Amino acid sequence: MINGFSKLNKQEKIAWLSTFFKNPVEATNDFSLFQCPNPAVQQVIDGFTENVVSNYVLPYSVAPNFLINGREYTVPMVIEESSVVAAASSAAKFWAERGGFHAKVLGVVKLGQVHFRWPGQPARLHQLFPFIQARMLKESADLTANMEKRGGGILGVELLDFTEKEPNYYQIRASFNTCDSMGANFVNSVLERFADSLEHWMTDFPELSDTERDIDIIMSILSNYTPDCAVLVWGECSIASFEQPALQLGMDARTLADRFATAVRIAQIDPYRATTHNKGIFNGIDAVVMATGNDFRAVEACGHTFALKDGQYKSLSRCTIQGDLFRFELEVPLSLGTVGGLTALHPLAKRSLELLGNPSASELMCIAASVGLAQNFAAVRSLVTTGIQKGHMKMHLTNILNHLSATAEEAAAAQHFFAHQTISFSAVRAFLEQLRDVT
Amino acid sequence: MINGFSKLNKQEKIAWLSTFFKNPVEATNDFSLFQCPNPAVQQVIDGFTENVVSNYVLPYSVAPNFLINGREYTVPMVIEESSVVAAASSAAKFWAERGGFHAKVLGVVKLGQVHFRWPGQPARLHQLFPFIQARMLKESADLTANMEKRGGGILGVELLDFTEKEPNYYQIRASFNTCDSMGANFVNSVLERFADSLEHWMTDFPELSDTERDIDIIMSILSNYTPDCAVLVWGECSIASFEQPALQLGMDARTLADRFATAVRIAQIDPYRATTHNKGIFNGIDAVVMATGNDFRAVEACGHTFALKDGQYKSLSRCTIQGDLFRFELEVPLSLGTVGGLTALHPLAKRSLELLGNPSASELMCIAASVGLAQNFAAVRSLVTTGIQKGHMKMHLTNILNHLSATAEEAAAAQHFFAHQTISFSAVRAFLEQLRDVT
Repeated sequence: MINGFSKLNKQEKIAWLSTFFKNPVEATNDFSLFQCPNPAVQQVIDGFTENVVSNYVLPYSVAPNFLINGREYTVPMVIEESSVVAAASSAAKFWAERGGFHAKVLGVVKLGQVHFRWPGQPARLHQLFPFIQARMLKESADLTANMEKRGGGILGVELLDFTEKEPNYYQIRASFNTCDSMGANFVNSVLERFADSLEHWMTDFPELSDTERDIDIIMSILSNYTPDCAVLVWGECSIASFEQPALQLGMDARTLADRFATAVRIAQIDPYRATTHNKGIFNGIDAVVMATGNDFRAVEACGHTFALKDGQYKSLSRCTIQGDLFRFELEVPLSLGTVGGLTALHPLAKRSLELLGNPSASELMCIAASVGLAQNFAAVRSLVTTGIQKGHMKMHLTNILNHLSATAEEAAAAQHFFAHQTISFSAVRAFLEQLRDVT
Repeated sequence: MINGFSKLNKQEKIAWLSTFFKNPVEATNDFSLFQCPNPAVQQVIDGFTENVVSNYVLPYSVAPNFLINGREYTVPMVIEESSVVAAASSAAKFWAERGGFHAKVLGVVKLGQVHFRWPGQPARLHQLFPFIQARMLKESADLTANMEKRGGGILGVELLDFTEKEPNYYQIRASFNTCDSMGANFVNSVLERFADSLEHWMTDFPELSDTERDIDIIMSILSNYTPDCAVLVWGECSIASFEQPALQLGMDARTLADRFATAVRIAQIDPYRATTHNKGIFNGIDAVVMATGNDFRAVEACGHTFALKDGQYKSLSRCTIQGDLFRFELEVPLSLGTVGGLTALHPLAKRSLELLGNPSASELMCIAASVGLAQNFAAVRSLVTTGIQKGHMKMHLTNILNHLSATAEEAAAAQHFFAHQTISFSAVRAFLEQLRDVT
């Protein structure tokens, strides 16, 4: 047990930490591998969270040739998984040649809740609620003034009765427009003010009995489940236009389209498949979310909850074939920001937004969802044709070769050999050992 | 549209990219802010994925004082969200003083599927399946030999009939033990071999009609939904032991425990709350998953699918109070690896594992889940007492002050002023402007 660790400065923290390592000097060196030579920038990164001792790097990539609603984008992606950026880029090009992606924001409603217990009659509370609501809105006006100037603010406030599920438990569910900010701090601040107003109103209102004044606020916090902050993105083309790519994969266009649509239907039928299918969509979405300084955990939690339709977890994307028309679409809730949070603090998040032309939050929703659909398209296309391992294992081979410190010559020999062999760690090691024995 | 972007070298990619920026020189400089001075290490990072033009950094933190199954850990966390590391550390200490976290791996079963269409009678396929299975196992023996040496391999293979939901659609669902590796490449390679064997068997088996030979493999791939690769983690203590912390928060121990348990029950009742509640759990889990080079998207997809119980999305954690005994527990599926993938390639992922004492995959499951539970504990405790904004806004204030380039003196003045004021970007800006006008 250590006391006061958080109060140590960064160097002291690292010194304490280094004692855990077999080689403390090498460990300390690794912790400084990716330190920024500019101390002001490093200070900003250190300020994001607590007990920071180092920088963890992920590759920052770009996927060019995204055509979305008629506009071309080069999309920044932060992801450590091989093949994802290549797949997104390839799908972007495929669709750019077929009219690109079309995207439509379905809503931008953010939500928050004040959870409380109240010992009176539900009907009485519903009757009193308009008065409470008026006070809540009045007393939060100073917090919402700026957001209102930008065109946002509180959209609605409703009282929900959960007393049948938990004694005396009610909820105030409020909806917000937070414009180009993700809005977590705004929503939470307003909700905590609402809770104060609710408490004070109950204390002040003359007509209440003493029991009725005993309101018990449990908690006030935004909801990450925002089904009405969502975007629909789709690509449409003739099946005939598949002819050339299908030919390269050794099948005719109709077969490719049919296999693709079947694979998507399977992800509607079977949750075990749906989880993986949607994971692929989030490979694309999260990479953009991260690159723009947004919170991928909020996006993941919301998206997967949304995927639960009719009590069964299902694919977020759908594919339809009508005559010669092939349509692939994705509907996904996305609560993103292009101002506030880390968007302007992280030097590369800022650059990501500039690269995208400093989009509004709604435009960023369209972009992130398009990358999700592109990623899903590439993954499913690969799965129903060559199989996923072919491209993936090629990347994996590079990683194994790096790990085994292969020289450029050895790597070239291995790439040639494993073009038609199953790649595994032990097989690559055996190949290299044989090669090294010979030379 | 650009052709051949992926074939450009890194410098050429950056040169092309820089033209998108108002100030190409500054943008190029930002892209090199976090480049590693050691070219071999940088090459490894560049090899993770495609089209890499820069390094994206996230703060790498540690949370000390985690006591799990009687052993002390200092846990590495990679997360950009403020308060998370502080909250996890605080909860770790709270529980370390009360016996620590107890964790039990419930299973380590990984899953994969071969999806196919077959035009014959379902009963006939079930009858033939033992022969097919034998061939699949025989023909994949070279791929599984090494995993078997390490104590893993194929656990089972079953045929599932989905023909009522999709014409002629069946599935081979296989289960695996992949030991200390996450196992994605292993599982996918075996499944693709299974698919080959299935196809060949159908071509070769003498007693089939020509129609019956027309098997159509749709795809072969692992499932990220692994409900039987899961861990249970819990903390238990007497409510009396809450007395001192409760007092500091202005309430008695029983009230604190009751409010806490109510908040967790609410996350069982209401999906809008459950999403946010579980998001908090993954704040902790993902930070460890990332720091150890694992795939957070796979973990998120699996965990949220798992949270769908009885057709309703629910909290992954549970809280019970029996007499004076307070118990808080989390059951979560976690498919992690401590060998393979990026675990040995990323210099800090490697250090993370060393810091944790080079744990097995099962031990890492226990650690990650404990951090998830700790994070959830701290978040809910904060929500039902001081509110989440208090600590969070303090961190947020630091970010705003950094953004507005506040000097150390200005920051100190702002921290003093905003200790009892609502923090917003405009309020901080106004405060600083006033301060600067005066001085």
